[in-house]
Amino acid sequence: MTKVGIINVTGYAGVELARLLHTHKGVDLVAVTGRGAVGQKLGEYFPHLCDMDFTITADIEASVDFVFSALPQVASAEACLPYVQAAVKVVDISADFRLKDAAVYKEWYGADHPAPEMLEGAVYGLTELYRPQLASATLVANPGCYPTAVLLALAPAVKEGLITADIIADCKSGVSGAGRGLGLIYHYAEENENLLAYSVSGHRHLPEVEQELRAMAPPFEPRVTLMMHLVPLTRGIFASCYAPLVEGKLPAGAAGREAVMALYRDFYKGEPFVRVAPQPPATKHTWGNNYCIVYPTVDVRTNRLVVFSVLDNLVKGAAGQAIQNMNLMVGLPETMGLEALPVYP
Amino acid sequence: MTKVGIINVTGYAGVELARLLHTHKGVDLVAVTGRGAVGQKLGEYFPHLCDMDFTITADIEASVDFVFSALPQVASAEACLPYVQAAVKVVDISADFRLKDAAVYKEWYGADHPAPEMLEGAVYGLTELYRPQLASATLVANPGCYPTAVLLALAPAVKEGLITADIIADCKSGVSGAGRGLGLIYHYAEENENLLAYSVSGHRHLPEVEQELRAMAPPFEPRVTLMMHLVPLTRGIFASCYAPLVEGKLPAGAAGREAVMALYRDFYKGEPFVRVAPQPPATKHTWGNNYCIVYPTVDVRTNRLVVFSVLDNLVKGAAGQAIQNMNLMVGLPETMGLEALPVYP
Amino acid sequence: MTKVGIINVTGYAGVELARLLHTHKGVDLVAVTGRGAVGQKLGEYFPHLCDMDFTITADIEASVDFVFSALPQVASAEACLPYVQAAVKVVDISADFRLKDAAVYKEWYGADHPAPEMLEGAVYGLTELYRPQLASATLVANPGCYPTAVLLALAPAVKEGLITADIIADCKSGVSGAGRGLGLIYHYAEENENLLAYSVSGHRHLPEVEQELRAMAPPFEPRVTLMMHLVPLTRGIFASCYAPLVEGKLPAGAAGREAVMALYRDFYKGEPFVRVAPQPPATKHTWGNNYCIVYPTVDVRTNRLVVFSVLDNLVKGAAGQAIQNMNLMVGLPETMGLEALPVYP
Amino acid sequence: MTKVGIINVTGYAGVELARLLHTHKGVDLVAVTGRGAVGQKLGEYFPHLCDMDFTITADIEASVDFVFSALPQVASAEACLPYVQAAVKVVDISADFRLKDAAVYKEWYGADHPAPEMLEGAVYGLTELYRPQLASATLVANPGCYPTAVLLALAPAVKEGLITADIIADCKSGVSGAGRGLGLIYHYAEENENLLAYSVSGHRHLPEVEQELRAMAPPFEPRVTLMMHLVPLTRGIFASCYAPLVEGKLPAGAAGREAVMALYRDFYKGEPFVRVAPQPPATKHTWGNNYCIVYPTVDVRTNRLVVFSVLDNLVKGAAGQAIQNMNLMVGLPETMGLEALPVYP
Repeated sequence: MTKVGIINVTGYAGVELARLLHTHKGVDLVAVTGRGAVGQKLGEYFPHLCDMDFTITADIEASVDFVFSALPQVASAEACLPYVQAAVKVVDISADFRLKDAAVYKEWYGADHPAPEMLEGAVYGLTELYRPQLASATLVANPGCYPTAVLLALAPAVKEGLITADIIADCKSGVSGAGRGLGLIYHYAEENENLLAYSVSGHRHLPEVEQELRAMAPPFEPRVTLMMHLVPLTRGIFASCYAPLVEGKLPAGAAGREAVMALYRDFYKGEPFVRVAPQPPATKHTWGNNYCIVYPTVDVRTNRLVVFSVLDNLVKGAAGQAIQNMNLMVGLPETMGLEALPVYP
Repeated sequence: MTKVGIINVTGYAGVELARLLHTHKGVDLVAVTGRGAVGQKLGEYFPHLCDMDFTITADIEASVDFVFSALPQVASAEACLPYVQAAVKVVDISADFRLKDAAVYKEWYGADHPAPEMLEGAVYGLTELYRPQLASATLVANPGCYPTAVLLALAPAVKEGLITADIIADCKSGVSGAGRGLGLIYHYAEENENLLAYSVSGHRHLPEVEQELRAMAPPFEPRVTLMMHLVPLTRGIFASCYAPLVEGKLPAGAAGREAVMALYRDFYKGEPFVRVAPQPPATKHTWGNNYCIVYPTVDVRTNRLVVFSVLDNLVKGAAGQAIQNMNLMVGLPETMGLEALPVYP
Repeated sequence: MTKVGIINVTGYAGVELARLLHTHKGVDLVAVTGRGAVGQKLGEYFPHLCDMDFTITADIEASVDFVFSALPQVASAEACLPYVQAAVKVVDISADFRLKDAAVYKEWYGADHPAPEMLEGAVYGLTELYRPQLASATLVANPGCYPTAVLLALAPAVKEGLITADIIADCKSGVSGAGRGLGLIYHYAEENENLLAYSVSGHRHLPEVEQELRAMAPPFEPRVTLMMHLVPLTRGIFASCYAPLVEGKLPAGAAGREAVMALYRDFYKGEPFVRVAPQPPATKHTWGNNYCIVYPTVDVRTNRLVVFSVLDNLVKGAAGQAIQNMNLMVGLPETMGLEALPVYP
Repeated sequence: MTKVGIINVTGYAGVELARLLHTHKGVDLVAVTGRGAVGQKLGEYFPHLCDMDFTITADIEASVDFVFSALPQVASAEACLPYVQAAVKVVDISADFRLKDAAVYKEWYGADHPAPEMLEGAVYGLTELYRPQLASATLVANPGCYPTAVLLALAPAVKEGLITADIIADCKSGVSGAGRGLGLIYHYAEENENLLAYSVSGHRHLPEVEQELRAMAPPFEPRVTLMMHLVPLTRGIFASCYAPLVEGKLPAGAAGREAVMALYRDFYKGEPFVRVAPQPPATKHTWGNNYCIVYPTVDVRTNRLVVFSVLDNLVKGAAGQAIQNMNLMVGLPETMGLEALPVYP
């Protein structure tokens, strides 16, 4: 059994990892850290985990074969470094190893990268697109929640050359996507019955989206407007993606809708966690599970592709995809530990 | 004092009219109708109106100088007709008199228009754009909630020729926008913690938006993608509008942001209910009041105009704008009865 | 493998059964019925179950060893009858077999009981209190969601003779407890930002609570006030129970608090799903899982016992407890299929 | 015109005062303070107040005739002191002048009272019960939100001697009642879909409730259990009060219900803001306005009085009642500035 540690269990991605790993049959969770809660029992800190018998430590003290880091950026790279150097496999949920270019990292995160030499070797863990590389990866950069939704929505269209570069992705996210830190806009009385846009002049997930769209079909050079909205949900991301169709690629009118649906179904055929839905999706259809549900259609009046995608930002957008990646990295079935269906209503 | 009647007080637009008219100093509410609640006291049917002493009737029985209709389409036109013919001024909150072309009406609403001869004379009651015509109007078509948000977001840009025709308006609405009728997607357990897209192949507000964008700057022929999302709010609309900037109209970079902000401020200068905000707006900043808050900016990486607008769909998107129109139609100060500030938090 | 059928999968209890049984390793779900959706695929009717390949039928057509009924009362007894007569084991989630006295049933449910002769043999499926009888039961009446919370909160105190009969149980429930049927008070716009009391002159769960409190410690004759409140939650029940302490049973002051905590911990020692928490519980600590969390304390100023209990009304309050009962009835481990931890946040 | 200042406009009670005073016709708001936001424009700090042209100052710099303090306890008494000494009338929204006994204050608030000599002269501003004293008061202690709900629910019964001393008040409050400060349990992702009890071993509003119940009908000595629950509402308090009926005061059975309803209606006859409702109330029936809605009934099975009361904790529970008190203190009509109806839905 693979022995697994979680660095920083006290945030939302960390605690979701703990929840999901508790019933995972293929690995043994052996250590959980969290600097603000050292010495506390996990089940006291998180009463819903009262059946998990762990003491939160400052650092991983047990011997581990695999590490998840759920620290914030910069701190996460620093924490992952020694494990990677010791050939312990790592999935980093932070943004630290997603961008291939350290200069772009500095531009968006405002810090020198702690380990730029490791950027090239890190695999971008959007499982569906990087499955071949994951089997042999030591260091995997788990994608951001928004990029997971946007990239899975657009990949079939970009790879098939269906759309031009003029992409608009209007994204809506629940509050847990912002983490467990306190802030006035996350106060219940402020965010309930409220909807707002944020990071309007540029969200940190933009360079990640651009990098990966480029990688899909070089020399495709996307011109992406990525706008983020905070909505009164605890969990859930809804991405609405719009782009002009390239002339002549799809039949006109309703037939175009069917063609794009068929193309998407074919692209994601056999995928265990991506569903191409027959009707527009709802975030609730993924609540608590690892699905990304995608719905492509055509605005036949304007000849634009419209793709909606939804996921649970803490599962497919964070801890679930991290486990999906781990399964492939250690040779377990990809779906192990992720079998639970969405919780509805 | 103008004597006012409300046709169909039992829906959300109707009951909001009653609430707002109760403290309006310039008019006397004298009759409220509602076919499903005939004979009941208004304060029994709506306990929050326990201080309003009215009996709900099937038809307006008192003599009135002014009528609001909050009926659904088709039924509304039929109910308004006799009043207009008797020269009683009318604001129709339904969609019946918004579209100038009866064929377009039939295409989108699936019914022959009950009074096509009255379409030309009806004034489209987007107050800020049609103020001169409202003073002498007998029949005013109150705009839809989505069109109010989208048109106020785009009017300055379209009228100034800032943008091309390739407009995308991604709209999010609270549940009260769908009315008080029952439906599974409006069930609390279904819509709480849920976000979904609907009317994906074409929402009825699209022809209304297109008609009015065309009217702003002929021969401007917009190519609009209008997508609607249901979000777990009771009240509130958030419209995110995207369009390419015409080359050379704005300075490059951050200066373009300032220029577009200045242009919008100038356009809406002196407006009592449109606010051009210095920061991205939140629906909560308009909760229960008649503001539409607009925030224009530029995505300088892609040279696109981005405008956010927010409003309360039951106030500026329905009953509030209806009263604003009534005030102008009967010669009262435009803001009368609409002075209350938003309720926060 | 036990072959299982669900009668009426289209309500909230039914669909939760389907979700939980999908990953249950000890049984095979072979049939799902639902009169309003006959012929539809389960995954079309409930998109979150897109991975379950079933067609909804009017009646169970396959051969089954075990049946869950999630029909409303009266209809449920009628549907269960033939299975019980054919010695197929049944858990009825409706209220039909909970009350031992057909006259009381008629008083509260307004109908003659369809099978009064079966009332005596039915086992009341509050697992923790009736475990010995469940192993050999053919027909189990799954308790109501409120009674499960209230009875588990009070059982240790009543059985130990700690409290007098003057019990007040102030209960708060999320909206899914009322089912998937439509109703104005369940409309999102009505229930969001709203809290109300209902069934004020007597809720149907009262006779069930009284019957079971009596059975705990005859000739204990409780005088229960049971008040129900609807709160803006999708899932969750919170029961706050108050009763005067019998003099001399507990030490005075803070020591009494410790004594009652110790007594409860002892009472529920080894229970797989009842947790006696060290701090006041929150409904979120049970979201989506089968826990009932209980917190007993003493109001030392007034010498009253106060017990809070929380559970997920669709799991421990319905489908989860039904599966817990099934496991015991067919000889499987009690926790099988119910291992998932609560989903938080 | 009375010149009014608000000390600490930056909390929820303060900002609600600002909102309500903006449209109050009888007073002039001339100053708003807030130590954390000195120098900012009110409309920048609170975008929904964009139409109010004030700069937030550290202290009141203008000359004022009347002061509201919305500071936390201790700090509030210190800030009010100089105004009271200068004969400027003051309503203190904090708890500082509510308790008549400085020792009780110290026990519950953990601090020596800054001005114990002023406790006796302060009037407890539960307007309906202390109206005669308010006209001549200089210093008014605005009641807590929970005590307002509980005391108005129980006053008629206690004053009439209907009930024994064994009172249980199970209270549920929205999140804004806890103020605008940050805390993990107020984080949207934690409190959404969550309901919890807090201050279980004794809430600070208990001595206030006891003091005022005693004052209603000496030598009545109540034995109150007061339990507080946090519910996912922004605004709203729902108090469910239970107490045994004294034998022989009310007719038995349903007639008792009618008698208690008549008694309550009589008690609150003519009150501008207390409504005795014909049906169980909902918090939404008071949203944003100054009502307290009360519904008394009898549990005829157990012969207990049950009273539900609801109010908006920021209006009748704080800023609205403060203005109601001010109106009486300065000789204005009691309802001035509080005419707006509840906002529904």
